[in-house]
Amino acid sequence: MNIHELIGELKEVGTSKIVLLVADGIGGLPLEPGGKTELETARTPNLDKCAREGVCGLSIPVLPGITPGSGPGHLGLFGYDPLQYRIGRGILEALGINFQVGSKDVAVRGNFCTLDAAGKISDRRAGRPTTERCVATVEKMRSIKIPGVEIFVEPVKEHRFVVVFRGEGLGDAVNDTDPQVIGVTPLVAKGGDPASAKTAEVVNNFVAQAGKVLAADAPTNGVTLRGFAKYPKIGTMQEVYGLKSAALAIYPMYKGLARLVGMDVLDAGQTLNDQMTLLKKVWDKYDFFFLHYKYTDSTGEDGNFPAKVDMIEKLDAAIPAVMELKPDVFIVTGDHSTPSKMRSHSWHPVPTLIHAAMARTDAVTEFSESACLSGGLGQFQAMHLMLLAMAHAGRLGKYGA
Amino acid sequence: MNIHELIGELKEVGTSKIVLLVADGIGGLPLEPGGKTELETARTPNLDKCAREGVCGLSIPVLPGITPGSGPGHLGLFGYDPLQYRIGRGILEALGINFQVGSKDVAVRGNFCTLDAAGKISDRRAGRPTTERCVATVEKMRSIKIPGVEIFVEPVKEHRFVVVFRGEGLGDAVNDTDPQVIGVTPLVAKGGDPASAKTAEVVNNFVAQAGKVLAADAPTNGVTLRGFAKYPKIGTMQEVYGLKSAALAIYPMYKGLARLVGMDVLDAGQTLNDQMTLLKKVWDKYDFFFLHYKYTDSTGEDGNFPAKVDMIEKLDAAIPAVMELKPDVFIVTGDHSTPSKMRSHSWHPVPTLIHAAMARTDAVTEFSESACLSGGLGQFQAMHLMLLAMAHAGRLGKYGA
Repeated sequence: MNIHELIGELKEVGTSKIVLLVADGIGGLPLEPGGKTELETARTPNLDKCAREGVCGLSIPVLPGITPGSGPGHLGLFGYDPLQYRIGRGILEALGINFQVGSKDVAVRGNFCTLDAAGKISDRRAGRPTTERCVATVEKMRSIKIPGVEIFVEPVKEHRFVVVFRGEGLGDAVNDTDPQVIGVTPLVAKGGDPASAKTAEVVNNFVAQAGKVLAADAPTNGVTLRGFAKYPKIGTMQEVYGLKSAALAIYPMYKGLARLVGMDVLDAGQTLNDQMTLLKKVWDKYDFFFLHYKYTDSTGEDGNFPAKVDMIEKLDAAIPAVMELKPDVFIVTGDHSTPSKMRSHSWHPVPTLIHAAMARTDAVTEFSESACLSGGLGQFQAMHLMLLAMAHAGRLGKYGA
Repeated sequence: MNIHELIGELKEVGTSKIVLLVADGIGGLPLEPGGKTELETARTPNLDKCAREGVCGLSIPVLPGITPGSGPGHLGLFGYDPLQYRIGRGILEALGINFQVGSKDVAVRGNFCTLDAAGKISDRRAGRPTTERCVATVEKMRSIKIPGVEIFVEPVKEHRFVVVFRGEGLGDAVNDTDPQVIGVTPLVAKGGDPASAKTAEVVNNFVAQAGKVLAADAPTNGVTLRGFAKYPKIGTMQEVYGLKSAALAIYPMYKGLARLVGMDVLDAGQTLNDQMTLLKKVWDKYDFFFLHYKYTDSTGEDGNFPAKVDMIEKLDAAIPAVMELKPDVFIVTGDHSTPSKMRSHSWHPVPTLIHAAMARTDAVTEFSESACLSGGLGQFQAMHLMLLAMAHAGRLGKYGA
């Protein structure tokens, strides 16, 4: 029996409320041996209070040593096995620009490239055009029509765009047309099954028309496509947990991931303050609230240790606004670590706290990597966090008699 | 998706070097309640320095409570699920005497037994003959010929030997001929499928001929066979991790296990000093080095607590020779515990350290069972250790976007 089947048997209706605050990439590393991490350096009286009153531990996003992207990182926190539920690149790109993908859609990531007179790729990123040029070039491709299929072309950034093919019976077992090297022509799309052969035919037609539309536009005179993907079949938070769920996120990628699991994606504004104001406003309407905070990750990716410390302290200052609402279960965690020392996501386990009336508290008195090591949650797989959330919320019955 | 498929997607080419030092059976127990283990008793300044600078934890070889043999213990450390990859007894015995098993071989463990006038077993171990007699008796069996099959008979020790049947289309679903009790005749071999029926026919022919050859040799006048096994299909370290791997082991069993996963098995000499000299010599030629140290296990099996302490201290003295080479990732662990108090392998978790630039260090300042308990690696499954090795070596890309 898998975990969702288990929850299906055990879940109970309730009025309790769960807040999941994801501080993206919050885990870190010291810059020097023996030093402190960003979280250990930050002054976090409010998070420390929650840690003291609750139970702490460290979350392993996927498996020991595995560094997740945002997709698998969040799916795990939402309780979906990130090795079972895989989200194709095309879908993630579409989610990232807030495109609302549906069940008849095949989404794919596009790159502008430069083609020489022989049709061979001379620059895989078309000299990294400005985003303005990307928008204008995408606009030209919107003139492309193919009978029986609706086509959406959306700009992303620089040489990157998204194409969504919408139609009946389109498969996504289609090879990338991006050969990943220069000096050769883009690859022809082929389908691995009849439905995907239909997609491939559409794709080759699209690429040919794009070649004509963009013929005079060098260096952005060609396109390559990769990561054909359909929307994955995935149970909603309502279906899996019986939780009416709301996402209060600012960045499109996280809104998209929340929409993927059926959350209501609210217009959370532009700041943490906006998010907290909205949380209070919609408090009575939902059981589960996903709050996403981006800046612990983006400062880590920038390699800016003091800025990450600062962003952690800003987050800490917002904690009382959540606690005032008296959530039955308040969880603070991250989807992965983003040590500024590494300027990237990493595999290191993520500090996590659960604040709830029935938490078995431990001796942890501060929210940090080192303190969480001795916490009552131990080290656990992220995909089990929602089981703990449901249990502490009094929403899981007994298994077996 | 299984772990090897995941690694297949994520592995990256690199120049970093990983050293895996397996101190066989290093984990132990105190002789008296409240006392110290062998490792806690030993003076280990060099291991303690690595523990202080790195990250520690405890490895669970298979599952909590499961005591592994050397085969599953090492497969786990090499990152092969020991519950999925099973190595038959016949293959392990063959590996243990450095017999190079191939894909057409069925290997089996043999015992000399004593048969009475009625052909019934009166002593399952033939009175434990000397190894010299074992060698001589095996030599006699080498006269046995069976058309279409090549037969290798090799002595092991006392009443134990190995037979390898080499031929086309031989299966290994064959029952043991050893009835495990006295007063009955050895069992007839039967095959569970057509290929194994072919093997069984050969086996029964072999046993009948052995009976004639050894008829006058009581007490070593009969043979029983158990653990028919073919060489398992298993990806090499190169295939799974992209690591050019070398084994520096002294004992045949560990050379055999390394060969099983495709490592280059080097002639490592007879002492730890020889191993370290060779390590330095071949340092530029490989990405991954498996160093095996036997004496922490053999002294434990002997029940000799002070000797095990001494062997741990000797190992500690060799650590600087590894550290001088500046491995990117240096791991010290064991394939299982071998407490001298138990005189046997045990299930107790195994002290483990990872020394690497991107290790998130913890408060552990010595390498011991009790200190590792509060380490940053927590308690983890041995089969996940190579994921951590690859991550710390910068050889694993991000999972998902």
